[in-house]
Amino acid sequence: MDISKEKTTIGFIGMGVMGSSMADHLLQAGYRVHVYTRTRSKADTICSRGAVWESSVGELSSKCRVVITMVGFPKDVKEVYFGQDGIFNHIVPPAMVIDMTTSSPALAADIYEHARKKGIMALDAPVSGGDTGAKNGSLSIMVGGETDAFEKALPLFEIMGTNIQLQGPAGSGQHTKLANQLAIAAGMVGVCESLAYAKKSGLDPEKVLKSIGQGAAGSWSLNNLAPRMIADDFEPGFYVKHFIKDLTIAADSAESLGVFTPGLDLAKSLYEKLADQNCQEDGTQALYKLFDPSS
Amino acid sequence: MDISKEKTTIGFIGMGVMGSSMADHLLQAGYRVHVYTRTRSKADTICSRGAVWESSVGELSSKCRVVITMVGFPKDVKEVYFGQDGIFNHIVPPAMVIDMTTSSPALAADIYEHARKKGIMALDAPVSGGDTGAKNGSLSIMVGGETDAFEKALPLFEIMGTNIQLQGPAGSGQHTKLANQLAIAAGMVGVCESLAYAKKSGLDPEKVLKSIGQGAAGSWSLNNLAPRMIADDFEPGFYVKHFIKDLTIAADSAESLGVFTPGLDLAKSLYEKLADQNCQEDGTQALYKLFDPSS
Repeated sequence: MDISKEKTTIGFIGMGVMGSSMADHLLQAGYRVHVYTRTRSKADTICSRGAVWESSVGELSSKCRVVITMVGFPKDVKEVYFGQDGIFNHIVPPAMVIDMTTSSPALAADIYEHARKKGIMALDAPVSGGDTGAKNGSLSIMVGGETDAFEKALPLFEIMGTNIQLQGPAGSGQHTKLANQLAIAAGMVGVCESLAYAKKSGLDPEKVLKSIGQGAAGSWSLNNLAPRMIADDFEPGFYVKHFIKDLTIAADSAESLGVFTPGLDLAKSLYEKLADQNCQEDGTQALYKLFDPSS
Repeated sequence: MDISKEKTTIGFIGMGVMGSSMADHLLQAGYRVHVYTRTRSKADTICSRGAVWESSVGELSSKCRVVITMVGFPKDVKEVYFGQDGIFNHIVPPAMVIDMTTSSPALAADIYEHARKKGIMALDAPVSGGDTGAKNGSLSIMVGGETDAFEKALPLFEIMGTNIQLQGPAGSGQHTKLANQLAIAAGMVGVCESLAYAKKSGLDPEKVLKSIGQGAAGSWSLNNLAPRMIADDFEPGFYVKHFIKDLTIAADSAESLGVFTPGLDLAKSLYEKLADQNCQEDGTQALYKLFDPSS
């Protein structure tokens, strides 16, 4: 299967903050890009730049050799792939499907198996790097699937990201992304506690960051999100509601693997408490509100 | 008070891994250094390099204009300062005392008050950067006390460290160090969970670190300690028993300030469980043993 620019139409499903930037990079690199998303207006900009609107997942899938999905929840992924109007009912082999949504490893394995039986290549390839990484084409892309499919898709990944790793067979991209979220989850609790303690003990939190940001306590969260907490800036870089989705998938997957995750359980319960306080549309740094109610 | 090299004898109490390197830097910089520590043999090397052994805290304190302490627990600090043979019973003003032990902020404030009444300057100046930072003179030094005393002591701090911050009045150095430990504590739980999840889901943990180490999940702990966890290397960089000491001080101080610290409480209980399994002499990365009993 040849997925060179000349011979390939890429279908991109999901025009959220992440998906629209990623699809735009493919378009600017010279690929023909057809798009579909539930809310058509979200595709207006990219269509004005040359992407082609398709009226349904099925329409898009019947016309594209490579279909990339970047949707919301695992249930959305399931619907997009297995639904009546879904990809599998319309895509024509030889073809490749790539799910870049952060989703369930078990679902990724199901998609792979189903695709394989139909003669279609499948990869799970969730990303980290957020809206900035998507915009700059500097995402970290964690890939699960067969080496052959990975190598074929690599030129596409290189347009969207800078750190691209084939992590193992189908599902491994999702597992890696969940390991990423696990490392963040409990760490966020520590960052909030550290900052709340600093403030409550009368210190200047910005000066505290100068002392602790570059040493053994240093982390991306401390150096990038604590300054926003200090400034009462809870604008979403990454939404609380999406982080809760990821933590729920991680908790389910960890439970099925028998991994002990008290830190995840704690972080998840705190984020759920935060969402109950009407903060699901905030950025993840809003967790700090639970630790410093004056914020 | 002039604490130039020519006019100053520095007394250094505590010749552990940290203290002996720090005192050695002062000696190499040209200061006269007198030392005392409970186990005399620990001072053999530095005495062979020119330091002068003193037979007690009292003896040392009566001869030195600047006394630096780097001992173990708050109870040791209390004894060294307030005991019968302690610093305050023997030191002769004008003088300066600097406690670089990680200890209680309340005790630091007590030392400062007591010193002030005697006409002695006092700073609390705990450090981070571990044995490597002490050896390389690249510690982060978090200082509490008066500006005047800080400025006088700065030339000494600059010999031992690279990131030196006056954080506020007496106790502020200790508060800052506790904020540092708070940011580390829950974060370590997340690192262990992430790695255990990666292994249990069949991934290659070293490759996972390549995907997640530089992004939003990145932290000093993930990048420096996870590789040791993977290699079953539990040698102490920083001892479990010392971390439990710090977490206990932090928990007490947070409680008295009314700071919500569920992540600290979790980490502390896990480290105490680890110590109960005879791992108190391991490095802090040994927390991983609770998450992957095959390690």
